[in-house]
Amino acid sequence: MDSTIKHIGVFTSGGDSPGMNAALYAITKTAEVNGINVSGFRKGYEGLIDGDLVQLKSHELQKLTQKGGTILKTARSKRFLELEGRKKALQTLNANKIDALIAIGGDGTFKGLLAFSEICDIPFVGIPGTIDNDISGTDYTLGFDSAVNTAIENIDKIRDTAESHNRVFIVEVMGRDSGYIGIHSGLMVGADAILIPESDTDFINLLDKVKNYDSEDAFLIVVSEGDEIGAEFVSSKIKEVNPNVDLRITKLGHIQRGGNPSALDRMLGIRLGVEAVKSLLQSKKNVMVGVLNNQLHLTPFNEVVKQHQVNKELHELLELFGT
Amino acid sequence: MDSTIKHIGVFTSGGDSPGMNAALYAITKTAEVNGINVSGFRKGYEGLIDGDLVQLKSHELQKLTQKGGTILKTARSKRFLELEGRKKALQTLNANKIDALIAIGGDGTFKGLLAFSEICDIPFVGIPGTIDNDISGTDYTLGFDSAVNTAIENIDKIRDTAESHNRVFIVEVMGRDSGYIGIHSGLMVGADAILIPESDTDFINLLDKVKNYDSEDAFLIVVSEGDEIGAEFVSSKIKEVNPNVDLRITKLGHIQRGGNPSALDRMLGIRLGVEAVKSLLQSKKNVMVGVLNNQLHLTPFNEVVKQHQVNKELHELLELFGT
Amino acid sequence: MDSTIKHIGVFTSGGDSPGMNAALYAITKTAEVNGINVSGFRKGYEGLIDGDLVQLKSHELQKLTQKGGTILKTARSKRFLELEGRKKALQTLNANKIDALIAIGGDGTFKGLLAFSEICDIPFVGIPGTIDNDISGTDYTLGFDSAVNTAIENIDKIRDTAESHNRVFIVEVMGRDSGYIGIHSGLMVGADAILIPESDTDFINLLDKVKNYDSEDAFLIVVSEGDEIGAEFVSSKIKEVNPNVDLRITKLGHIQRGGNPSALDRMLGIRLGVEAVKSLLQSKKNVMVGVLNNQLHLTPFNEVVKQHQVNKELHELLELFGT
Amino acid sequence: MDSTIKHIGVFTSGGDSPGMNAALYAITKTAEVNGINVSGFRKGYEGLIDGDLVQLKSHELQKLTQKGGTILKTARSKRFLELEGRKKALQTLNANKIDALIAIGGDGTFKGLLAFSEICDIPFVGIPGTIDNDISGTDYTLGFDSAVNTAIENIDKIRDTAESHNRVFIVEVMGRDSGYIGIHSGLMVGADAILIPESDTDFINLLDKVKNYDSEDAFLIVVSEGDEIGAEFVSSKIKEVNPNVDLRITKLGHIQRGGNPSALDRMLGIRLGVEAVKSLLQSKKNVMVGVLNNQLHLTPFNEVVKQHQVNKELHELLELFGT
Repeated sequence: MDSTIKHIGVFTSGGDSPGMNAALYAITKTAEVNGINVSGFRKGYEGLIDGDLVQLKSHELQKLTQKGGTILKTARSKRFLELEGRKKALQTLNANKIDALIAIGGDGTFKGLLAFSEICDIPFVGIPGTIDNDISGTDYTLGFDSAVNTAIENIDKIRDTAESHNRVFIVEVMGRDSGYIGIHSGLMVGADAILIPESDTDFINLLDKVKNYDSEDAFLIVVSEGDEIGAEFVSSKIKEVNPNVDLRITKLGHIQRGGNPSALDRMLGIRLGVEAVKSLLQSKKNVMVGVLNNQLHLTPFNEVVKQHQVNKELHELLELFGT
Repeated sequence: MDSTIKHIGVFTSGGDSPGMNAALYAITKTAEVNGINVSGFRKGYEGLIDGDLVQLKSHELQKLTQKGGTILKTARSKRFLELEGRKKALQTLNANKIDALIAIGGDGTFKGLLAFSEICDIPFVGIPGTIDNDISGTDYTLGFDSAVNTAIENIDKIRDTAESHNRVFIVEVMGRDSGYIGIHSGLMVGADAILIPESDTDFINLLDKVKNYDSEDAFLIVVSEGDEIGAEFVSSKIKEVNPNVDLRITKLGHIQRGGNPSALDRMLGIRLGVEAVKSLLQSKKNVMVGVLNNQLHLTPFNEVVKQHQVNKELHELLELFGT
Repeated sequence: MDSTIKHIGVFTSGGDSPGMNAALYAITKTAEVNGINVSGFRKGYEGLIDGDLVQLKSHELQKLTQKGGTILKTARSKRFLELEGRKKALQTLNANKIDALIAIGGDGTFKGLLAFSEICDIPFVGIPGTIDNDISGTDYTLGFDSAVNTAIENIDKIRDTAESHNRVFIVEVMGRDSGYIGIHSGLMVGADAILIPESDTDFINLLDKVKNYDSEDAFLIVVSEGDEIGAEFVSSKIKEVNPNVDLRITKLGHIQRGGNPSALDRMLGIRLGVEAVKSLLQSKKNVMVGVLNNQLHLTPFNEVVKQHQVNKELHELLELFGT
Repeated sequence: MDSTIKHIGVFTSGGDSPGMNAALYAITKTAEVNGINVSGFRKGYEGLIDGDLVQLKSHELQKLTQKGGTILKTARSKRFLELEGRKKALQTLNANKIDALIAIGGDGTFKGLLAFSEICDIPFVGIPGTIDNDISGTDYTLGFDSAVNTAIENIDKIRDTAESHNRVFIVEVMGRDSGYIGIHSGLMVGADAILIPESDTDFINLLDKVKNYDSEDAFLIVVSEGDEIGAEFVSSKIKEVNPNVDLRITKLGHIQRGGNPSALDRMLGIRLGVEAVKSLLQSKKNVMVGVLNNQLHLTPFNEVVKQHQVNKELHELLELFGT
């Protein structure tokens, strides 16, 4: 155990995602049990630069495992991209005698820590938080499971009205670069077609199905947002071959980013939060904690990459169910 | 009691709304207890014209009070606007020995029944079903309460992410001609601004608030869809005065039309369904059943109008909370 | 307008119920607009006696319309039943220059205010908050609609497993003295039998139905808690006539008291909160604000009584659907 | 590919769990794509014995991925424990030319298949379905994630009322022999104490905490049902040391078994359903398909055991957060 750590700093950065508050609870509780104080920096790297911090107490955080978003707030920081910003952040850490730093965010957040490590030698640990589930070194990122649960609960509602009218519905879900939410939610709601950026969409097949769809049932299409696909694009393609189709579009949008975290995301937040503090106590540094093959796993920051996780099994499912 | 009624026909017409299946259950159960058969016509007036009907059994419908949409499906019918279509519908009724007809739908549905009554003299009763709650003669229409519950559950999710980023969010809810969903959902989520078609929006005041919003908190705007307002219009107005604002738009869309009916809508469906059959048994005809001032109430079809229900009290609430 | 009011005190008392926080928001916002400060006393009358108060700000409460329970906490106070306790409460009000008092609670809360009015002459206004909906002078009390929504969402889940096993299920809902939750939730889920304290249960009929239930379907009984009925009692009755019945009991319990308030309860909280402040500004005193026949309505405290609201229409529905 | 399979039989057995219908959809869709018919036997082994079967069509099942329970119904079968029952089941399979059999259920279900394999040599494949997650060879069983999501959503509600009254609450969750639901839900809601059968509860520590709990906050205990623990037992222990404690009990009960399946359970159902058919096509027999370390995995029936899955990591979390 690394007995030199007395004061851990923590912050959330990049997009918020459900489960971040559960991670903050677990970090603080684990730290307290080990006699360590925890301070939370507000608004990501901005709080490090500006010295905007609050003391965290597990007794208060305990009630917030259920709360979506992040109580520390989050932001993207242009200033931290500059050396000057990082130097100010270093001053903040020194002034507050912070011995170690835990960051919850995406791959950009961890890249920031790597850059910071050039001038700051306290240990850093990262926790992957993004609804897109597109980070290597972990099966799940904080927020993905909540986002998919929100998506399917709402697509289930859309099915009610789609079936009542025998309509074609295009539902657009999040994931500009990653179809992970798209393929999962599409499979889970029994969609008639699923379109994601990782796959060459077989439009001919899709249009053929929609063209011949007998108007005696709903036809439900789940599509990821994106430049090459997206709801409007699919809609225009369909209307080319079937101009009279009774078609509606719903874009789920930011509802997928909020809401009470799902069971999986709360547990993931707790597991990763505990492991982050334990890793620091074991003198680890510049690593991301993750759950890989259902086991806790550490990945050095410089090996963490943005990674599409639509694997062979998912591609086969897409082929089987997707059009 | 009108002992001549042996066979009631029922159908859902216009837009679907949660609670319609509860009404079908109550109609069928009440009819059965009175020795009356019930047949359901599919796809609104289309089913009347085409003779597309199924026998309804309360034992099966009992399990479907929780289900959104309408198991009879619904549609808008151009053919029924023509005399020829209505004549075919009359043939269907005669062929199936239908003694009375109950329609669940909006004001357009009831207008159709009025036109039909010129050639068909069996009694008609209507049940108001539309999420817009814009029909005179009833405090609530089937589906409004469910739609608002869906809206606020999702706006609550948006608040999580809005507060995490201190962002301005514009959430667009349904109600092209009626701000009833907009004002209700806006008040219920503690919105910073609420914009509905019934009110001259004080853009100067709103823009002033957004201009000076201190970026230390979220700013949540709920706006009804529409030509004069709508999310994009409000967004463009804001960006004129505050081009750098961190603003996001979410349009809730058709999720507001589906989903399991809320408590109020299930109860309303049951009350109105029972009352519809009772009214027929009491030889009423060409009336809409409603709940006015919490009491069951009948309104002749020719007095039912599309009506904005944003009353004086709501206007005062809008003034107090809306900007 | 009563310009003498500068500082309103507010507290929640008795059982908590969803919607209380929305009322606190509306009270505070309306007061602020009228230049009035609002202080919240914690833990009901206990806070008045002990001088335990916090200043309320609408900007903070705005985010809490969605939160169940009461942020002011609530309690039953034995000390306030004694004159000495009420004298201490008076001292608190004087010391803090409280000009008017708003209490959110049940009939017991309002009786307390009546007693208090003998020694304290500032104006009191009450807001009815209880999930049991058993207070005269209002169609709805804060929390009832949320409780019923929670009940039916969970009974819907039970239906899934009941139908999978063709089991008899007895679900016990809250309402020791009042079957209002019982009859509503029973009707809304399509129960096979509904048993409430207000009605002589026709056990012979019920037992006959269960005895002959063909084990090809679920049989769902919704029963209010209580001495004369309750789940165990009904279970023992059934087992007398059908010892081999595959029967399960679930008591929903306190989940019915919590959770995010429903749309109706949030709106009710806002309407009643605004009206409470307005009433004070119009020099009203010792009245409860309610919504009667969908209109705002004032009832003098001494006319507010605990009242069963299972009316003639509900009794008829019970007879039709309840066994 | 095993081209000899033309007709697969499928059934659900033991306790129902959310996700079973998604599995039925995936089985049927995968079979259809491979030119195979699927028949569903109703009520588990009872349907095999009685020849009670229906043809399954993916087009219909597609809409039911969202539905809890099992549309095939389920049961425990005493008759199948006897050789005579199994002989009748064999006759049914022969009469209907069933080439392969897929069973969704728990370890008892798979034991039944092993016994059946002595007289029936068509291939069997099993899919693990039980909310208790206590089967070896898979990280997750169908239904566990849904059950935990239902548990935490409702415990969150209880927190609202517990905090409003500063009460001690004991919430009992399912898992008579397995504390897997208990430890997960307890951690996820930030419980003050978690008691499960796998762990010697440190009652001295717990009682010390409750004894000194300062009545300025809620105290939330999550406990698994069971003989040695359970809500009443814990309650009596607490009242011994603190007779005046303001304590309430809620037993979540069968609501944990029903409800729309969570995202994870729908996906698990789809993955396992597809893999079950693929395994048959690859001439596998007498194996259970599971997801182990996030990969599809086959376990021979005779190696499948009922297994507590509270591993070292969970025990450490329990020690850290549980009392």
